[in-house]
Amino acid sequence: MEAGARIEICLEEAVASASSKPCPPLLAKAVHYAIFPGGARVRPQLTVSVASACGDADSSIADHAGAAIELLHCASLVHDDLPCFDDAAIRRGRESVHALYGEPLAVLVGDALIVEAFNTLQRGCQRDLNKLGPLVSCIAGAVGMPGGIVAGQAWESEPKINVHQYHRAKTGSLFVGAVAAGAIAVGEDPQPWCPLGQFIGEAYQLADDLFDAAGSAEESGKPVLQDVNNGRPNAVAKYGIDGAMKRLKETVGNAVDAIPDCEGGEELRSLILAQATRLVPSKLAKSAA
Amino acid sequence: MEAGARIEICLEEAVASASSKPCPPLLAKAVHYAIFPGGARVRPQLTVSVASACGDADSSIADHAGAAIELLHCASLVHDDLPCFDDAAIRRGRESVHALYGEPLAVLVGDALIVEAFNTLQRGCQRDLNKLGPLVSCIAGAVGMPGGIVAGQAWESEPKINVHQYHRAKTGSLFVGAVAAGAIAVGEDPQPWCPLGQFIGEAYQLADDLFDAAGSAEESGKPVLQDVNNGRPNAVAKYGIDGAMKRLKETVGNAVDAIPDCEGGEELRSLILAQATRLVPSKLAKSAA
Repeated sequence: MEAGARIEICLEEAVASASSKPCPPLLAKAVHYAIFPGGARVRPQLTVSVASACGDADSSIADHAGAAIELLHCASLVHDDLPCFDDAAIRRGRESVHALYGEPLAVLVGDALIVEAFNTLQRGCQRDLNKLGPLVSCIAGAVGMPGGIVAGQAWESEPKINVHQYHRAKTGSLFVGAVAAGAIAVGEDPQPWCPLGQFIGEAYQLADDLFDAAGSAEESGKPVLQDVNNGRPNAVAKYGIDGAMKRLKETVGNAVDAIPDCEGGEELRSLILAQATRLVPSKLAKSAA
Repeated sequence: MEAGARIEICLEEAVASASSKPCPPLLAKAVHYAIFPGGARVRPQLTVSVASACGDADSSIADHAGAAIELLHCASLVHDDLPCFDDAAIRRGRESVHALYGEPLAVLVGDALIVEAFNTLQRGCQRDLNKLGPLVSCIAGAVGMPGGIVAGQAWESEPKINVHQYHRAKTGSLFVGAVAAGAIAVGEDPQPWCPLGQFIGEAYQLADDLFDAAGSAEESGKPVLQDVNNGRPNAVAKYGIDGAMKRLKETVGNAVDAIPDCEGGEELRSLILAQATRLVPSKLAKSAA
């Protein structure tokens, strides 16, 4: 079975188990809405691709670790959209969770998804207990304190923001976690894989900045010009569109160069380069062509 | 070392590790504030007491599992106090986290504590990997969906509330988790222990209702009459003060009768009866004496 389909099955299993009796019906509906239909599932695809590049093309642990990371990514989107943060009414081209289900359920959906992510890891590791501890540690580091996405979001509450740490924690950490989890899932040392995750995280941050400054709301699935309007750091404001595009290209190059020697390295390289074409707003892709 | 001191050390270790560089300073402060100084640490004490009653008086895994449960309890208090839920400005006799640090940091503190709880479990099980999976599963069930505290809180968003499920999930589930985790930590089957957790949870719910209806804000550390003012189900409204007191006494009796046969059963029985005296507002304790 293709990796994308396996990830969706893991996500469906997690939601079905979480939504079974006696779950309050609206919470179950809101959790389902937060996860399906998903975006590109970039992070879990990365986890599974790294596991595959290491030589294990059908790792159930990698599938579950990828699904756990996607649940955490969805949790962070739901909480980031809350009125006290971005106050975003639109996400993935439709109403955000709090806009549709109200703020209390949106807070609880995020909380429940964080819990369910760790439960999904546990389910994935039932036949290989040695991997659960390292995976919990890796993924907790990617989402929690001191340098995960929660810490990244918290930089916005500081009187003085550390922009490097902010981006590294808010966007980069979960990519590093996704890559490292793929290596751990198949018994490889995750350390040599971390630079790949860091570069991919930087590329996605640059892409996000480019879409915010030069993309359309339709293409992004969310309002644009949010960084400008909220005075948040943005690479386009700093380097201009051409400068940000140049940096994006360099960063994708750095990412593929950072792939460690491994069985499926060439395939992973092609996959990352193919995905990178989606990182540029279509308007800019045309003008760059 | 006494159990209470060991639990505090586990909590301090968790906060120190989470707050290390590059953690944003305000997030670190707010997380510390949410945990220290704590309340009675009833749930982790219960975890450690059950492990001890099973014959292991010095279980590092039970200490860590108890600390994880306390982190989750603190997370639930911080999120429950948010403006979109109880909008409580006071907790444990001082400003609530969102009142002092603002709503964005309060959301992030709760999220970070949930993540750190699972990381604490992982740290506690590094020398005994077999226990991590069952502990993650047990504790995820106690806090998440379909029947943990998050699900309990979500009943408040339903058009029709299932009061039994509401209390069972919102208050009872973490006590069941605390008791079951104590058994798992020392390699015992958790199932026979669950009724004890359920009865203790019911006793705490009755106590909470009694404090809300007949306690003082000073004694409770939070505003009273919240259930009356918010139209929430409350045992005193249903059974009257005398009726609720009678039920509390019966429930504590059921709890101690539910202790499974074990080495330290008599000691656990005395401990629970001693703690139960604190479940009654002093005003009622005097009139009942």
